[in-house]
Amino acid sequence: MSPERLRRLLAAVAAGETSPQEAMEALAELPFADLGYAKLDLHRELRSGLPEAVYAEGKTADDLLAICRRVHEAHGRVLVTRLGADKARRLVAELPGAAYEERGRVLTLGPPHPPPRGAAEDGRVAVLAAGTSDLPVAEEAATCCAFFGHPVDRLWDVGVAGLHRLLGQLPAVRRARVVVAVAGMDGALPTVVSSLVSVPVVAVPTSVGYGASFGGVAALLTMLNSCAPGVAVVNIDNGYGAAVLASRIAGAGADG
Amino acid sequence: MSPERLRRLLAAVAAGETSPQEAMEALAELPFADLGYAKLDLHRELRSGLPEAVYAEGKTADDLLAICRRVHEAHGRVLVTRLGADKARRLVAELPGAAYEERGRVLTLGPPHPPPRGAAEDGRVAVLAAGTSDLPVAEEAATCCAFFGHPVDRLWDVGVAGLHRLLGQLPAVRRARVVVAVAGMDGALPTVVSSLVSVPVVAVPTSVGYGASFGGVAALLTMLNSCAPGVAVVNIDNGYGAAVLASRIAGAGADG
Amino acid sequence: MSPERLRRLLAAVAAGETSPQEAMEALAELPFADLGYAKLDLHRELRSGLPEAVYAEGKTADDLLAICRRVHEAHGRVLVTRLGADKARRLVAELPGAAYEERGRVLTLGPPHPPPRGAAEDGRVAVLAAGTSDLPVAEEAATCCAFFGHPVDRLWDVGVAGLHRLLGQLPAVRRARVVVAVAGMDGALPTVVSSLVSVPVVAVPTSVGYGASFGGVAALLTMLNSCAPGVAVVNIDNGYGAAVLASRIAGAGADG
Amino acid sequence: MSPERLRRLLAAVAAGETSPQEAMEALAELPFADLGYAKLDLHRELRSGLPEAVYAEGKTADDLLAICRRVHEAHGRVLVTRLGADKARRLVAELPGAAYEERGRVLTLGPPHPPPRGAAEDGRVAVLAAGTSDLPVAEEAATCCAFFGHPVDRLWDVGVAGLHRLLGQLPAVRRARVVVAVAGMDGALPTVVSSLVSVPVVAVPTSVGYGASFGGVAALLTMLNSCAPGVAVVNIDNGYGAAVLASRIAGAGADG
Amino acid sequence: MSPERLRRLLAAVAAGETSPQEAMEALAELPFADLGYAKLDLHRELRSGLPEAVYAEGKTADDLLAICRRVHEAHGRVLVTRLGADKARRLVAELPGAAYEERGRVLTLGPPHPPPRGAAEDGRVAVLAAGTSDLPVAEEAATCCAFFGHPVDRLWDVGVAGLHRLLGQLPAVRRARVVVAVAGMDGALPTVVSSLVSVPVVAVPTSVGYGASFGGVAALLTMLNSCAPGVAVVNIDNGYGAAVLASRIAGAGADG
Amino acid sequence: MSPERLRRLLAAVAAGETSPQEAMEALAELPFADLGYAKLDLHRELRSGLPEAVYAEGKTADDLLAICRRVHEAHGRVLVTRLGADKARRLVAELPGAAYEERGRVLTLGPPHPPPRGAAEDGRVAVLAAGTSDLPVAEEAATCCAFFGHPVDRLWDVGVAGLHRLLGQLPAVRRARVVVAVAGMDGALPTVVSSLVSVPVVAVPTSVGYGASFGGVAALLTMLNSCAPGVAVVNIDNGYGAAVLASRIAGAGADG
Amino acid sequence: MSPERLRRLLAAVAAGETSPQEAMEALAELPFADLGYAKLDLHRELRSGLPEAVYAEGKTADDLLAICRRVHEAHGRVLVTRLGADKARRLVAELPGAAYEERGRVLTLGPPHPPPRGAAEDGRVAVLAAGTSDLPVAEEAATCCAFFGHPVDRLWDVGVAGLHRLLGQLPAVRRARVVVAVAGMDGALPTVVSSLVSVPVVAVPTSVGYGASFGGVAALLTMLNSCAPGVAVVNIDNGYGAAVLASRIAGAGADG
Amino acid sequence: MSPERLRRLLAAVAAGETSPQEAMEALAELPFADLGYAKLDLHRELRSGLPEAVYAEGKTADDLLAICRRVHEAHGRVLVTRLGADKARRLVAELPGAAYEERGRVLTLGPPHPPPRGAAEDGRVAVLAAGTSDLPVAEEAATCCAFFGHPVDRLWDVGVAGLHRLLGQLPAVRRARVVVAVAGMDGALPTVVSSLVSVPVVAVPTSVGYGASFGGVAALLTMLNSCAPGVAVVNIDNGYGAAVLASRIAGAGADG
Repeated sequence: MSPERLRRLLAAVAAGETSPQEAMEALAELPFADLGYAKLDLHRELRSGLPEAVYAEGKTADDLLAICRRVHEAHGRVLVTRLGADKARRLVAELPGAAYEERGRVLTLGPPHPPPRGAAEDGRVAVLAAGTSDLPVAEEAATCCAFFGHPVDRLWDVGVAGLHRLLGQLPAVRRARVVVAVAGMDGALPTVVSSLVSVPVVAVPTSVGYGASFGGVAALLTMLNSCAPGVAVVNIDNGYGAAVLASRIAGAGADG
Repeated sequence: MSPERLRRLLAAVAAGETSPQEAMEALAELPFADLGYAKLDLHRELRSGLPEAVYAEGKTADDLLAICRRVHEAHGRVLVTRLGADKARRLVAELPGAAYEERGRVLTLGPPHPPPRGAAEDGRVAVLAAGTSDLPVAEEAATCCAFFGHPVDRLWDVGVAGLHRLLGQLPAVRRARVVVAVAGMDGALPTVVSSLVSVPVVAVPTSVGYGASFGGVAALLTMLNSCAPGVAVVNIDNGYGAAVLASRIAGAGADG
Repeated sequence: MSPERLRRLLAAVAAGETSPQEAMEALAELPFADLGYAKLDLHRELRSGLPEAVYAEGKTADDLLAICRRVHEAHGRVLVTRLGADKARRLVAELPGAAYEERGRVLTLGPPHPPPRGAAEDGRVAVLAAGTSDLPVAEEAATCCAFFGHPVDRLWDVGVAGLHRLLGQLPAVRRARVVVAVAGMDGALPTVVSSLVSVPVVAVPTSVGYGASFGGVAALLTMLNSCAPGVAVVNIDNGYGAAVLASRIAGAGADG
Repeated sequence: MSPERLRRLLAAVAAGETSPQEAMEALAELPFADLGYAKLDLHRELRSGLPEAVYAEGKTADDLLAICRRVHEAHGRVLVTRLGADKARRLVAELPGAAYEERGRVLTLGPPHPPPRGAAEDGRVAVLAAGTSDLPVAEEAATCCAFFGHPVDRLWDVGVAGLHRLLGQLPAVRRARVVVAVAGMDGALPTVVSSLVSVPVVAVPTSVGYGASFGGVAALLTMLNSCAPGVAVVNIDNGYGAAVLASRIAGAGADG
Repeated sequence: MSPERLRRLLAAVAAGETSPQEAMEALAELPFADLGYAKLDLHRELRSGLPEAVYAEGKTADDLLAICRRVHEAHGRVLVTRLGADKARRLVAELPGAAYEERGRVLTLGPPHPPPRGAAEDGRVAVLAAGTSDLPVAEEAATCCAFFGHPVDRLWDVGVAGLHRLLGQLPAVRRARVVVAVAGMDGALPTVVSSLVSVPVVAVPTSVGYGASFGGVAALLTMLNSCAPGVAVVNIDNGYGAAVLASRIAGAGADG
Repeated sequence: MSPERLRRLLAAVAAGETSPQEAMEALAELPFADLGYAKLDLHRELRSGLPEAVYAEGKTADDLLAICRRVHEAHGRVLVTRLGADKARRLVAELPGAAYEERGRVLTLGPPHPPPRGAAEDGRVAVLAAGTSDLPVAEEAATCCAFFGHPVDRLWDVGVAGLHRLLGQLPAVRRARVVVAVAGMDGALPTVVSSLVSVPVVAVPTSVGYGASFGGVAALLTMLNSCAPGVAVVNIDNGYGAAVLASRIAGAGADG
Repeated sequence: MSPERLRRLLAAVAAGETSPQEAMEALAELPFADLGYAKLDLHRELRSGLPEAVYAEGKTADDLLAICRRVHEAHGRVLVTRLGADKARRLVAELPGAAYEERGRVLTLGPPHPPPRGAAEDGRVAVLAAGTSDLPVAEEAATCCAFFGHPVDRLWDVGVAGLHRLLGQLPAVRRARVVVAVAGMDGALPTVVSSLVSVPVVAVPTSVGYGASFGGVAALLTMLNSCAPGVAVVNIDNGYGAAVLASRIAGAGADG
Repeated sequence: MSPERLRRLLAAVAAGETSPQEAMEALAELPFADLGYAKLDLHRELRSGLPEAVYAEGKTADDLLAICRRVHEAHGRVLVTRLGADKARRLVAELPGAAYEERGRVLTLGPPHPPPRGAAEDGRVAVLAAGTSDLPVAEEAATCCAFFGHPVDRLWDVGVAGLHRLLGQLPAVRRARVVVAVAGMDGALPTVVSSLVSVPVVAVPTSVGYGASFGGVAALLTMLNSCAPGVAVVNIDNGYGAAVLASRIAGAGADG
C-alpha cells in the first residue's frame, strides 16, 4: 500500500465515505512489508548515515562508474572496496574528488562522515598489523574507519614475534575506544593485545601464511579461542567488516 | 626489582653514594618484567574492576570454596561460571550472600559492579536467544552482563523460524547499546538482527543442533559470513566471553 | 499497535477528532511487526494446519506433559519427536488417545491431519530404508508423514548392496508422489532410486556407519553429489524434516 | 536377449518345437539387464520427456556442436549448461534457433517442454537470489525451469541483509508451487523464506563469499541446519540440479 | 512375475491359447527385478558361498539368537562380528558348536568354508598388527579369514617403530598370497610392507591414537598416500571388510 | 661391507689368520644395510619385473628423455605417467618405438610385460568408468594394466545414474579376475559393482565434480564406506596405483 | 641366523670343513633382519638407555604389574604413563620403590637415568604451562624429563593472557637448554616464548578448551604457524613425547 | 623513556633537585616497554647472531635490493628465502658476493655464521629427502643450516618405498647432532628414521602428493602421530623453519 493509497483511505474515513470498520479491514489486508520497506529503509539511512559500500570485485569499470555516480548523488559520498589498481585509475580519472588508497584497495568519494556525536574519546580507533603482509587488510580497515569519521592510529609491524615492538606502542593502543588487530600465521596478536587493554579488540585473521595456515583458518581459530576475553572476531581478510564493527562500537550509542 | 630496592637505589643516588652512571647501569639491568608485573596488574585491576572469573569445570567443591573466599576477600565480589547444580548447592550453603542462576550455571557473590560511568544509554545490553535450547548460553551471558553492572533485556525464543516474534521485539532490541544474539542450528539470528539495528551485535554460536551442525560449527560459519556487517563473533557456547565483550563495548570508553 | 488502538484511531478520524494527516503519521510509526505477528501467525496456521512439532530431547516428562496438553487444546492434535521410551510410557499413561511408535521415537495424539485436498496420487509417500540400522530414522519419517495425512509405503532393507531387492520394489516406489530414501554408510541409495523414478527423492543421510563415515558426513556428501539429478537432501538423521518436506511436496500446491 | 531372439523362442514354443520347460530355462538364463536396458530407457524417456542436459565444461566447441545436433535430432530440443561465452557464439552461429542466456551460461535449442499436465498452480516456480553475485547460479536455475515448461518468477537481490526487500516480495513468492532460493555467504535466505511460506523451498548454496565461507560450505551447512523445516538442499552452485528438482516437485505427480 | 506365472504363460503359448505376440507383450511388462531377484540371489550364494555376516552391534541377544539359528539352518554356518562378551556368553551357551574369539569379538558357528579351489599358495593370508592396541581389529580380520577357508599367519607387534621386528618376519610375510596390515597412529606399516613384498597389501587403519590422530583419519590418509604402490585401503577399524577383500584376492579367480 | 671385504674375511678365517671369534665380531659390526641393499634390490627386480614408473610432472622433456633412455637400457621397457601432450611429442619423436596414449597421459616404450604365469583367468582386468569425465584416470589405469601384461576390458560410461547400462555389461565384468571401478561425484559405482560380482573391486575416486565434491573427497568417502564388502580403495585420481594393485591381485601369487 | 649358527659356520670355515665360497653363499642367504634385530636392539639400548615407556591405557592392573616386573628386571627402572589413580594404588602397593605422580598420571620405579654426560648446561629443561588446566600434560612432561636425568624447572600459569607473569619468569626460562611450552585454547604461549629465547621450544598443544578449539586442533595449528621460528611441535596432549624429544635435544649429542 | 631522559632524571636526584620519592614516581610511570625494547632487542642480536631472514615472496626486486643492502650493512650477512630465479638474477648481479641456490630458492650474502662454539659433534646436521619432489624444501633447509655455520650432510632419495636406500645411509645419519627429514605423500620417513637413531628428528612435511594428500596435511598428520618418539614437527614446506630449529638444537646450549 503506497502512502497515496493510505492517504486516500484516511481521507475517505474523515469524509464519512468509509466506515472505521471498513478501513480496519482494509488495513488488516495491508501488505505490511511494503510499509515496512519504506520505514525500515528510511530508519536505516537516518540512523547510521552509512550507505552500503560498493564491493568492486566482479564488476566492470563501467558498472562501477555508474553505481558510484548514483550513490554519490543519493548520499553525497561513496565507499568502494576491493578495487584493483586498473579500475581505480579509471574511476579516479572520471570521478572528480575521488581518492584511492592502493594498498587497502579502497576508493572514497566525498567528505568523510562526521564524527559520531558524543562518542567517548572521539571514537578513536587503533588499527594494528602483525606483519607487513597483513597491511592490505589493515589498511582497508583503517581507511574505512577514517571515512566513517573516526580518528585512526595505524600501528604497523607489531606482531608478537617481536614483543618489544608491541609493548613500545602500548600508550597509543590504550587511548583508543576500540582496537582492530590484524594478523595472519599464528594469529596471536589480538590475544596479547586484549590482555593489555580494557577496550574491545576486533580481531581480523588474514589469509597470510602457508602450509597448515589453511588460508587463514589457523589464525581464525586462534582468535576464537583467545584465552583473554574481550575479543570480537570477524571473517578472514574482512577489513571492511572490521571497520563497520569498530565504528558501531566507537559510535555514540544505542539505536535512536 | 622490588619497589624497596628501587627506593634504596634512588636514596643512594641522592646521598651521593651511587653515581648517576652506576644507577643508570643498575636500572638497565632491571628485570622490567618484575616492574611490569606490578604495574600491569595494578593497572588492570584499577582500570576495569573485573577480576578474572572462576571457571568451575574440573575443580572440586572444596577447591572452589577456597578460591571463592580468597577472591571475595580481595575484590569484594566473585563470579563463578560453568558451575553444576551439585557443587552450587554446597557453595550457596557455605558462602553467605551467594546467588546461583541454575540455567546459566553461574554463581555470583557480592554486589554487582557499579554501572560504567558515562556509558551511553546506561550501557544497556539486549540478550537474544533463538530457541529454548540456546537458553543456558544466553542466560550465562545475561547473568554475567548484569553482574558487570549493565541493565539487561532478555528476549527469548526470537529465532528466525518465526520471524514475526523477532520483529515484534524490535523496539526493545533497538534501545540497547549492544546486542548479544545467541543461536545454534543455522545461526541466522545475528545476521537478521544486524540488518535491523545499528549497534554492534555480539554473535554467540551454540552447540545446539544435530547432524551437520557439527557441534556449533555450522552456526559459527554462518555468523562469520554474515552478509550484514557489524557482527562480532565469539567462540561456540561462550556466553561468558560474549558478556565481557559486550561489557567492554557498552562501557565508558578508552583505557584510561 | 493493538487492534483496539487502531480501531480507536480510525474512530477519531471518522469523528473529526484526528485529521487524516495526523493519522497518517501515527500509522507510519506503527510497529508493523505487531501487526505482522498476528497476520503471519494466523496465515501460517490457516494455511498448513501443521503446528510445530514438540522436540522431546532435553525436556522432562512433566514439561512434555504440560506442553502436549496445551498444544492439544489449541490444535486438537500433537506430534512429539525424539521421545525416549521411558518418558513415552508416562505420556501414554496420562494422555488418553496418545500412541507411541517406539522405533521412530514418535508420539502422536489426536487424529492425523486430513489428506491434502487435490493432491495428485493422494499425496502418497514411499519411505525407503537401506539397512535395518537406518530404521529409526526411516520410521520417524514414515510415522510423521502418515500423521500429516499421507498414505505411506514402508520399503525396508532395500540398500544397493542387494540391488535386486530394490529393483523388486520398483512398482511400489513408482506409484508414490515423492520418495524418502534413508541411508547411512555410503549413502548410495537415493542416487540409484532417483535414476529409476521421475518424482522427487528426499535423501536422508543417517549417522549409521563407522570409521570414515564421520557420523553421517560420508552419506551426506554422497547425496549432495548425486550423479542423478532430482535429489533433495536434508540434515543427517532428520526424519522429521524429511517428512515435512515430503508433505509440502506431496501437498496440494501453492501457498494460498 | 534381443526382442528378435525372444520372438523366435516364443514362436518355437507355439510351434511345439520347444517345450515350455525348455523355454522356461532359456528365460531363466536371459540376461535381464539387456531387457532391462530397453525397458528402463524407454520408460524414462516417455515418462519425463527430459533428456539429459549437455554439460559443456571440458568439451570442445566441435564436440558440443556434434552432440547438440544428435540430441536435437533425437529429442527435438537440447539444453546445454555451463557453457562459456566463446563456445556459445560458435554454437549460436551454427545451430539455427539456439538461444544463449549469458549470465546463467545456458543454451537452449528447440521449444521449451510443454507445461506439466495437471500441475497445481501451473507448476509456477519462484527463483530468489540473495545478492547480485548469486545471479549466475540463480539464472541457470531460472532458465532451466522455464525450458522445462514452468512459469518462472525471478526475484533478485532479496537477501536477509535487507529484510524489507524480501518481505516486499512475499505475495509473488507465495503464489509459486515451489521456491528456489539461491544464496552464498551466510546462506540464511532459504531459512527465512521457508518460515514465511508453506511450499517446498529448494536451497542452493553458492560459492560466493570469502575467508571462512570455504567456497560455499558455510552456506551449505546453514541450509542443512535450517531451523525452519521444509528446505531441500542441493549441491553448491548447482542451479541445474535445483531446476530438475523443482520441476519434479512442480510436476503433475507420481511416476506413471 | 513368479516362476508359476511364467510357467502358465508358456504353457498357454504351447497350447495355442496365447499367441507369441501376446506373450511377447506380457514379457515386456515383466518386472525384471523379480526375475532378477531370484537369479542374482542364487548366483551370489552359489558363487561365493559367503552369506552375509551378522553385525551384532545394536541387536539384542534374543535377536541374535534367532538370526543365528535361521542363518545356520539355511547355510550350515554363521559368522557374527562386533559381538560383545556378554552377549557372546549367551550365544555360546545356547548354540552348540559356537566358538567365540574374544579379542576380535567374532563368533563362528559351523565348520569354516572349504579352501578356495585352485587358489595359488593355498590362498594363504598374513595378518600383521603394528601394536598391541591394534589387535582387536587384526584378530577380527584373522578370525574371519580363517573362517573363509584361508590358512592365516598372525604376525603381531611388527610396527615400524621397531623396524627389526618387521624385517625379522619377512619370510613369513612373503609366502602369503595377500597381506593384511593393521595399524593406527601414523599408519606407516602398510607402506613399508608394500615396499618389501610383491603381493597386494590390504591396509586397515585403526582408531588407535590420540590428539591429531582424529580417530584413525591420520592413519587412513597415510595409507591412501602410500609412496609404495600396491596398497588397498579399507575403512577405519574394518577388520571384517579387510577379510572379505583378502579372501576375494586370495580366492580362485574370476566370477564363474 | 662389500662382497670383496666379506670374501677376504672368510679367506682369512680359512687360512687361520683370523679366528672365528674375531670374524664373528667383525660380522656383528657389518653394516647390514649394505648387504641388505643389494639383496633387497635384486630380489625386487627379479621378483616382480616391474621397475618403478617414471612420474613426468615437474620434470623437463630433457630430463625425461635421459631417464627413459637409462631405464630402457636397464630394463628393456619404460612406463611414463602424467605426461602432457607437449612433452610427449618430443619423447615420441626421439624414442623409437615409444607409444603415447593421450587421454590417459601415459607413454610406453618396449614390449608389454609378459602375462603373469599361472594367473587364473589369464589375469584379466575390467576397467569401468562412471562418466566421460572419469576417462583420463580410467584410461591411465587401463593402459598401465595392459602394459603390465593383462588382458583389459574397457567399459566406459556405466555410472549408476543409468543403471541399465551397467547391468547390460555384467557378463563382461564378471569374467575378469579383478575389476577397477573409476568414479567421481557420488562415487557409488564400486559399491554397486561389488554387490554384483565376487572378485575384488579396486575403487578409484576421481576429482570430477563440483561444489561439495571437494576434489574427490566425497567419492573417496563413499568408497571407504561401501555397504558392499570387497572394495579396495586407492587415492584420488590414482589410476597408476590402481593398475599396480590390480596387477598384484591378478598376478600369479605369493612372493616367490 | 642365530649367533650360534653363525659361530658354527665360522668354526667350520676355520676347520676347513666349509670353503669360504660356501660360507659366502650361506651368508648371502642370511636373513639380515635376524642379525639386524639383535644389532639394532642392542645398539638402541646401549645408546640411549631409554627403554620404551609402558603405556597404561587399556591394560589391566595385573597386566601392568607383570610388565613392570619384567621391564624392571631387565633394565633396573620402569616408566609408566597415562596411569589412572586406581591402578596406580595397586602398583605402588606391590612394587616396592615405585612412585606415582598423580596429576601427570606417571609412575616411576627405580632411580632416574643418570644425567647425559657432557650435556651443555646440565641438560636443564624448563617446562611451562599456560593455565591450570594444562597441568596434567605439563606434569607428565616434567616428570618424564626428570626421570630421564634432566634438571627440570616447572613454571606454571604463565599464559599470555597475563603477559607479565611470563615476563617475570624469563630468567628461569633462559637458563634452560630446551623449553617445553604446554598450552591449550589459543596455543599462543610457544610463539611468545620462542620470540624471547634462543633455545629450541618444544610446543605441546593440549585438548583444553571448548567450542572451536576442536580438542586441541586450534592450539596445534597456532603452534605449527608460529611467526617466531625455532618451535618444535608434537601431538596434542603428548607430554611423554615432548619429554623424549626434549631429552634428545638436551642430551650429549650425536648417536655414538 | 629514552636513556637521555633517564640520565637527566638521575643527575637531578644526585644534584638534589629531585627527591628520591619524586624520582620513584617518575620511574613508576616509565613506559617499561621502551626500556624493554632496547634490552630485548640487544639481547637477541648479541645472543644468537641470527638476524631475521628476508622472505622474498610478494616483494619486488627493488625492495629486496634495498632491504639486502640495509641488512648487510647492519649484520655483515643476509639470508633471503623463497626467492624466484628472475629476481635472483637481478640481486646476484647487483650484490657482489651474493650466491643463489636455485633449487632451494635461497640467496646468501656474506660469510656463513661461525660454527656454534662448543657444540657437540660440531653441530653436524643430516638433511634427508624422501623423494626428488621434496628436494626444493630439503635444499632450503640444507642451505640455511650451512649458512648458520653447521656442517651438513645431504642424503637425497631415501624414502621408505626403497627401505634399503635409507638403511644404507644409516652411518651418515647417525653421526649428526640432529636430523632433518623431509617427506611428502605418506610422510613416513621421519618415523622410520627416529626408530633408528637417538638424536632429535625435525620432520618437515611437504605439499608433494595428490588426491587425499591435501597439500601436505596427510604427511603432517603422519608425523604428528609418529609411533616413534623424538620427532619435532614444523609447518608444511617450511625448510627455513626446520633449519632454525635444527640450528638451535645443534647449537652450544642455553640462552646466555
